[in-house]
Amino acid sequence: MDKDALLDYEYPDLDPVPSKIEPEIIPPCDPTADDRLYHICITAISLVVMLILAVLARRTKLGNKHTGLSGLLSPVNFLDHTQHKGLAVAVFGVLLCKLWGLVISPNPLPFTTDSQDKQNWMILGVFYYPALYYPLLACGTLHNKVGYVLGSLLSWTHFGVLVWQKIDCPKTPLIHKHYSLFSSLPQIACLAFLSFQYPLLLFKGLKGTEKNNATEDLSSSYYKEYVKKVLKKKPSKISTSSTESPKLPQRIIDAVKLYIYTPEDAFRFPLNLAISGVVSFITLYQVGLLLIMIVVPSLQTARLGVNEDIANVLAGFKIMLSPDKQEVVRIVVYYIWCVEVSYISAMTLSGLVNLAMLMRSMVLHRSNLKGLYRGDIYNVYNCQRSIRASRPALVCWMGYTSFSAAHICIGMIVQTMVFFLCLLIVIFLIIIPVLHRQNLILFQILWSMWPFWLMIILAVLIQHITARFCFIKKIGGTKDLNNRGNLFLLTYLLFPVNVLIGVLLALWRIIITALFNIVHMGRMDISLLNRNVEAFDPAYRCYAHYLKIEVNQSHPVMKAFCGMLLQSMGQENNATQRSRDAEEGIQLVQQEKKHHKVSSAKRAHGHWQLLYTLVNNPSLVSTRKHFQHQTTESFLNGSLKRSTKERSIKEAEAAGSN
Amino acid sequence: MDKDALLDYEYPDLDPVPSKIEPEIIPPCDPTADDRLYHICITAISLVVMLILAVLARRTKLGNKHTGLSGLLSPVNFLDHTQHKGLAVAVFGVLLCKLWGLVISPNPLPFTTDSQDKQNWMILGVFYYPALYYPLLACGTLHNKVGYVLGSLLSWTHFGVLVWQKIDCPKTPLIHKHYSLFSSLPQIACLAFLSFQYPLLLFKGLKGTEKNNATEDLSSSYYKEYVKKVLKKKPSKISTSSTESPKLPQRIIDAVKLYIYTPEDAFRFPLNLAISGVVSFITLYQVGLLLIMIVVPSLQTARLGVNEDIANVLAGFKIMLSPDKQEVVRIVVYYIWCVEVSYISAMTLSGLVNLAMLMRSMVLHRSNLKGLYRGDIYNVYNCQRSIRASRPALVCWMGYTSFSAAHICIGMIVQTMVFFLCLLIVIFLIIIPVLHRQNLILFQILWSMWPFWLMIILAVLIQHITARFCFIKKIGGTKDLNNRGNLFLLTYLLFPVNVLIGVLLALWRIIITALFNIVHMGRMDISLLNRNVEAFDPAYRCYAHYLKIEVNQSHPVMKAFCGMLLQSMGQENNATQRSRDAEEGIQLVQQEKKHHKVSSAKRAHGHWQLLYTLVNNPSLVSTRKHFQHQTTESFLNGSLKRSTKERSIKEAEAAGSN
Repeated sequence: MDKDALLDYEYPDLDPVPSKIEPEIIPPCDPTADDRLYHICITAISLVVMLILAVLARRTKLGNKHTGLSGLLSPVNFLDHTQHKGLAVAVFGVLLCKLWGLVISPNPLPFTTDSQDKQNWMILGVFYYPALYYPLLACGTLHNKVGYVLGSLLSWTHFGVLVWQKIDCPKTPLIHKHYSLFSSLPQIACLAFLSFQYPLLLFKGLKGTEKNNATEDLSSSYYKEYVKKVLKKKPSKISTSSTESPKLPQRIIDAVKLYIYTPEDAFRFPLNLAISGVVSFITLYQVGLLLIMIVVPSLQTARLGVNEDIANVLAGFKIMLSPDKQEVVRIVVYYIWCVEVSYISAMTLSGLVNLAMLMRSMVLHRSNLKGLYRGDIYNVYNCQRSIRASRPALVCWMGYTSFSAAHICIGMIVQTMVFFLCLLIVIFLIIIPVLHRQNLILFQILWSMWPFWLMIILAVLIQHITARFCFIKKIGGTKDLNNRGNLFLLTYLLFPVNVLIGVLLALWRIIITALFNIVHMGRMDISLLNRNVEAFDPAYRCYAHYLKIEVNQSHPVMKAFCGMLLQSMGQENNATQRSRDAEEGIQLVQQEKKHHKVSSAKRAHGHWQLLYTLVNNPSLVSTRKHFQHQTTESFLNGSLKRSTKERSIKEAEAAGSN
Repeated sequence: MDKDALLDYEYPDLDPVPSKIEPEIIPPCDPTADDRLYHICITAISLVVMLILAVLARRTKLGNKHTGLSGLLSPVNFLDHTQHKGLAVAVFGVLLCKLWGLVISPNPLPFTTDSQDKQNWMILGVFYYPALYYPLLACGTLHNKVGYVLGSLLSWTHFGVLVWQKIDCPKTPLIHKHYSLFSSLPQIACLAFLSFQYPLLLFKGLKGTEKNNATEDLSSSYYKEYVKKVLKKKPSKISTSSTESPKLPQRIIDAVKLYIYTPEDAFRFPLNLAISGVVSFITLYQVGLLLIMIVVPSLQTARLGVNEDIANVLAGFKIMLSPDKQEVVRIVVYYIWCVEVSYISAMTLSGLVNLAMLMRSMVLHRSNLKGLYRGDIYNVYNCQRSIRASRPALVCWMGYTSFSAAHICIGMIVQTMVFFLCLLIVIFLIIIPVLHRQNLILFQILWSMWPFWLMIILAVLIQHITARFCFIKKIGGTKDLNNRGNLFLLTYLLFPVNVLIGVLLALWRIIITALFNIVHMGRMDISLLNRNVEAFDPAYRCYAHYLKIEVNQSHPVMKAFCGMLLQSMGQENNATQRSRDAEEGIQLVQQEKKHHKVSSAKRAHGHWQLLYTLVNNPSLVSTRKHFQHQTTESFLNGSLKRSTKERSIKEAEAAGSN
């Protein structure tokens, strides 16, 4: 908001009847960099960049098999913990801002000026923008200086034109004069990050300090370090402290810690979760901005436009606030100001709540992932599930980042509305009456009911006191019932009072449940339903499926194992080839091994390994039958690998965590 | 409802402009049995009955120690599975109806005619009625013919006067002419049951067929049968069928079975649960009746009172339904009729839902209790808890029956309101437009968005189909990812579409969550919150505590053990005394044993038993220190008993259930 808007928030006491203000008319603004022309040019440039990259990829393919055309078609490895996440995250951020603009603005695409066919253009835009920003991702894939140069140029163009347009036309008639400017801030930030990152990569590439391996997944040292950390013996905790229940300050600190994400050395987020975090944050900003910009300026206009006519209008509805018209105007202005304040407070509260929830989600993601790596399936899912790739799991995995953004959006809108209503009730029924000492209706009702409240409180107290001192006796460390006769008598006599207490309890239950569910609506990592029907909550179901794929396909210990296997293979073959991901690694191993002559000593070694594995993993015997026609060795090294590891990982981590 | 009301439910088509009807004026009716006089008399009679019972109890105390005055002061044993539950349940039903009348009627007590001080009289009434109906319970305690005669007389008086009053004055001006009559039906039923039950008991007593033991808890054969059932070896299930997942029809049947309570031979409900079930049912009836009676008659009056003036009124609001005034009247009558029908449907639906929930609760209560008896604490509570008597647990236990009634009441009101709103939306936005083929606003909006829906459906389909056929391959029984590059590309390209799908998913989540919570609002046996914060739901917390006391204090295997111990004691002492409940039994054993000479063989036997118990229950060693000053024997027989048994029960049941 600009300065005027901020100044407006001093309570308008000194000037109760403001002079009527004219609404500011914003002329339609055509930026020097015409959006239509710009989009045609940038689309062409992007196409050219992609062609250059393709030619480049075809040439480098001869030297390096795995970063060729196929690499260009999948620039992001979503199942990766180690690659530099910045590029992908920034591009997703830009994409989300564009989608937001698509939904809000009357002209979704710059190629059209009529807003009649908005829907069809929007559908086109939904597919156009991912394609438009695709080269920004692809330029970083080849790990090539030309790619970095192209990436730098492209991101500079995007960034420069956007900033230029915003400087040209800071005010637009859409929603609020500054809405468009503020709304594009995250997009500018993401593009600025890209414009900075590509030259940095180029610079590193020129200096030769860019570790080519750092961006490659399996050869990273992270997985090995993770395994080392897991296998390291932890200092055994003092057992006496665990039996005592922690004291209150300690418990508060523990609870607060659950909401503060502190990075851990031996854990990195999967790329998908990093993207979902940033995307959620941008959604938070955009929804908050929209909620403020839609409502507050019109309330301000209404407040500043109140004049003595309002007294006549109210008199038409038989509402007499005061005989003095000036006084009526002052009261109405004051009430509108209260509504405004409570709306802004509700929005802020909702934003803060969602920020806290975002942090909590990150903490929970980490503990869930670590738990599943360790094999604690029951703790995470509350039931035994097979962590295996399946069709629904894969679909949920693909949509997870998008769904989390959508949930934050809907959650924040609902929260703001509910908090706003609650604040209005509190302000107009409690705070204003107390401040002005009039219209204390609520308090009068509550006060007139004092015998009822007294009865309720006494009944509760009697039950607690008698339960503590009369009906429970301690014998030798165990508590037991005493005076059963009197207990039964009291239960019978207090039955009607307890029904009344139960009504209060039921109302409290409704409030608690509604509040909890509304506060946690934006979070996909917990179910809002009862534990037995958790899976009916579509958001939680999606998250549970997402975790399955993530754990099944990018378990750090499995990756460390694959990396080591490939390394030893590479040493044996004296080949310089490096495989890019686990899948290719596995296939490579299988192919290579088949045509490979092995010495009889190696074969015997292999047999022993097979035997050892099968003894330790009896469930694999059935799987093995399928591979019987292959040689024992390729079987051992190839397909068994993953399953074996999952077992050995669990054992290793279980050993490590003890 | 009477015949007129039923006839009204034919759609008023033939007579669109009904003749104006005069509202029926109900004269205030004074029944021949004046309520004030009746209450003064019945209070005096009840007092006399209690005095007679006290004298009787004092006399029988000499002969039978445990059914004396103390028995008279605790006529109900709430921790009992075996006693005849009818008397207690009926008295609680009467009490609830009285409480309901107390809250609804403007004159809570018959002693007063001014309705100004309603609150104070209500508070008085809350304590007066339990005392008034107390003798109805106490008469059955002594197992004495005089008691039964007094009980019969008292219940006949109550029943007779109530029926007489209702015949005298079937119509009252309160809420609806017949409300008072219908509202007192459950009370009449309960009193009729009592009037029938007491003579039956007297008759059995005279004939001598009344088993004196049948009403006594520990000597009942039920507990022994339960133990036998637990220890009996179950036929081992065929293991092949358990590995296959059941087919759809079977799963539907299983799901339906969860909502139908079928009595089991080897399980009886604790008295508290039986009372809570009946009390909930009566609440259901009363709330349903009130909801119907408050709203429907006034809607009917409004509908029948519509005349041509309504066209002028609507024209004042600029609403022109039709140029023809007759037509306007017909339309307005039709709309009011629709509102009426949807209200009644909503109420009926809510009642049916709550009935189903009540049945489901009973099934769940049984499985929870059986699980806890077996030691499956984790399955029931989702965490390890100590099943031990404590202050909050006892308070929750005392209030449980009342709370469940209150929750059903609030739940039903909320449900009816929500269902009513939903039905109104469905009827006025979908059904009426479709029937009349006009105002199809909703369908027009949805239809105009068809490209959007097509895009969403296509995107979802593409993801599912590609996931199934391109990205997942089966190798040797395990599924694995395939084509990672294309998977990542599709994930990136579909990001914006998935955000839009996510918005729909979030809305679906809100609907599902709200619906689930509203439907289950009346149930205390499940938490409406997420599994990690279950205890914050006050109703579920109360239920969990309630179960603790119930299991800790009336475990059937413990009771069977105590019963057997007392039996053998009785044989040893050749005494005819019979102890009434577990607590007295335990104390008796301790006292008797202390003054009892034991042979050295018996002492050696005791030592062996102690050793065996301590070896099998190492946790008891610490408890034992407290009792070191007592003789080993009394320790073994007395205090250890309960804890030992809890252990051995678990072992026995675990063995039995395998």
